[in-house]
Amino acid sequence: LVERMRPFGTTIFTEMSALAVRTGSINLGQGFPDTDGPAEMLDAAARALREGANQYPPLPGIAALRQAVAAHEQRFWGLSRDPDSEIVVTAGATEAVAAAILALCEPGDEVVCFEPYYDSYAASISLAGAVRRPVTLRPGPGGRYGFDEDQLRAAFGPRTRLVLLNSPHNPTGKVFTRAELTLIADLCQEYGTYAVTDEVYEHLVFTDAAEPHVPLASLPGMRERTLRISSAGKTFSCTGWKVGWATGPASLVSAVMRVKQFLTFVNAGPLQPAVAVALGLPDDYFTGFRAALQARRDRLVTGLTEAGFDVQPSEGTYFVTADITRSGGTSGIEFCRALPERCGVVAVPTEVFYDDKAAGRHLIRFAFCKREEVIEEAARRLAKLK
Amino acid sequence: LVERMRPFGTTIFTEMSALAVRTGSINLGQGFPDTDGPAEMLDAAARALREGANQYPPLPGIAALRQAVAAHEQRFWGLSRDPDSEIVVTAGATEAVAAAILALCEPGDEVVCFEPYYDSYAASISLAGAVRRPVTLRPGPGGRYGFDEDQLRAAFGPRTRLVLLNSPHNPTGKVFTRAELTLIADLCQEYGTYAVTDEVYEHLVFTDAAEPHVPLASLPGMRERTLRISSAGKTFSCTGWKVGWATGPASLVSAVMRVKQFLTFVNAGPLQPAVAVALGLPDDYFTGFRAALQARRDRLVTGLTEAGFDVQPSEGTYFVTADITRSGGTSGIEFCRALPERCGVVAVPTEVFYDDKAAGRHLIRFAFCKREEVIEEAARRLAKLK
Ligand SMILES: CSCCC(=O)C(=O)O
Ligand SMILES: CSCCC(=O)C(=O)O
Repeated sequence: LVERMRPFGTTIFTEMSALAVRTGSINLGQGFPDTDGPAEMLDAAARALREGANQYPPLPGIAALRQAVAAHEQRFWGLSRDPDSEIVVTAGATEAVAAAILALCEPGDEVVCFEPYYDSYAASISLAGAVRRPVTLRPGPGGRYGFDEDQLRAAFGPRTRLVLLNSPHNPTGKVFTRAELTLIADLCQEYGTYAVTDEVYEHLVFTDAAEPHVPLASLPGMRERTLRISSAGKTFSCTGWKVGWATGPASLVSAVMRVKQFLTFVNAGPLQPAVAVALGLPDDYFTGFRAALQARRDRLVTGLTEAGFDVQPSEGTYFVTADITRSGGTSGIEFCRALPERCGVVAVPTEVFYDDKAAGRHLIRFAFCKREEVIEEAARRLAKLK
Repeated sequence: LVERMRPFGTTIFTEMSALAVRTGSINLGQGFPDTDGPAEMLDAAARALREGANQYPPLPGIAALRQAVAAHEQRFWGLSRDPDSEIVVTAGATEAVAAAILALCEPGDEVVCFEPYYDSYAASISLAGAVRRPVTLRPGPGGRYGFDEDQLRAAFGPRTRLVLLNSPHNPTGKVFTRAELTLIADLCQEYGTYAVTDEVYEHLVFTDAAEPHVPLASLPGMRERTLRISSAGKTFSCTGWKVGWATGPASLVSAVMRVKQFLTFVNAGPLQPAVAVALGLPDDYFTGFRAALQARRDRLVTGLTEAGFDVQPSEGTYFVTADITRSGGTSGIEFCRALPERCGVVAVPTEVFYDDKAAGRHLIRFAFCKREEVIEEAARRLAKLK
């Protein structure tokens, strides 16, 4: 293995999911639902298989899907895109992030990101020979995560090429506020940097979040310098399909496409028409999906609190973070390794997503994208910890 | 776009397929079939969609598919693999090639490859900051392609990290002989280099080929240093599914997995069980598939010959190459750009796959993976050129 990839072992999600299987535990580690997406979407996929959508789709994705992505961004975020030049379909958000970084970062370029960060970010930055400049998210008043403005300013410099922003944020459940986004946007413009935004949880912002989700691309001056990434996996409960997309000005989309064509070429031929159908579902689907997840979050938070954890507020995503200090834990990694034997539940240590290990050592993440009875059973098992 | 990717424009396949659509031509450019794969496979995919195979598969691929890949390699090539450590499922052969090169090549490392080469090879090498050392394939006695032993030897040196070999070879239709493979194997061992083999056309070697297909990995001393890549797309006529795999010693497979987890993570959840079914089809399927393609090759070769082209022998793959010199052409690129208007057929100029442009300027490639009536019609149209 090349030197630049040696720091990155097998992703923690794979390690913890294997542990769940081995110990027969309830897997609240890796974020994937245990029910499948809308029937309209599954039926459309079955139809596409029969009707011959099995050969290479066009490099940017099939026209129906690009049109559906454009209509969806217009409907929910008021962003207007030309489906012919401003959208590219990718093998999930992961490929979009990798291709964006590989397309935009020369060796030595710097990428501002927020820690804790989704693990593929650091790896993709390293693969490009670029350097990450992490800004640390820390719980503030009321437990909501924020960052230090000075640390953000200090992260920018002459070699800053892009800001990589994930909101709603995995693993913290933070939704970046308009004031925070405005600060980021101002710095992007001051330093002439691009932004790459991972918004795969765009439809999972709960009704008690401080503010609704705002795409960075919709702020003044940002449309022209932002590549917005999302995917079907989370919104339509089909994480294994790996159908994602990137939208933005034609020059950025074209750069992504020039790299992605050599990473996978194209992807998921017969699933693309189905995702196009899903994106066009009525608003009901999206609000119902969010309400269901919010109820599961609430049930899990109650269980975790009853089990003695300090639980941090989760405004969005599939995830909630617990502080293990009051439960007698000091290392989240050790805590998570022992948890399956102690009570038959798997969680993920947040520490692995930090450069500043001290900031995350006492935190662990639970996924609540599971059926109600599974969350009930997990809560019963966690109660044993008391 | 970063500097190292600037030489690589939009892939020629995308350009020529767009031209085919725009001009309403028969597309014998990009290699994709116009009929779909075995019913057993399509039915299995529809079943998997319904039965909930829609979430993340395990990072190395689902167990059933890894077992099927192992059984398939044993049945056809006598190679035995541990499904738990020696196989990784990828987003088509393209991702396997990209991940292998990115995992193994440090900046400045050299990769020996054969030109004309499949276009993603050069791009992946460049993305890794590595350097390609092409060896030129040229038509020899009887029109069969060979290479110069001295040029191959000269391509090896102290910085050689790996040999990238595609056999059966796209675009020439060449099947590397055992003598040629032995020479390559000897050099790999002499220089301590790895081999990455792209064998996606493993089941398309025609009965009149000089020799049957031999995986490089099956030569003495090569198993331990070879990563063998193949995919479902060509063998089961599902090019849009993008389900491929890499097999080899655990250390090489693990290196590929460490990179691929950050390119796409996983892929094609509901299609993986279907490919497992397809790989287990009886021998009949594979021989019937080859015979069908051979008949189409023969029909197209007749048409091309009648249209006045010098046609080179094709021992395998989806493709046959024609020399345009006798048809009054000098530049394959110009010839292919004009062909749709002249007769309503699209082909691909082979020149774009060469560093040594002079070696390929007069060559164009036709795909024959099309229904018989389509090839008949293409032949009728090509007859207008006379
Ligand atoms: C690479 S598996 C990731 C699933 C996920 O998004 C998460 O659990 O954070
Ligand atoms: C990237 S499309 C490639 C299809 C194919 O393998 C070919 O036409 O050579």
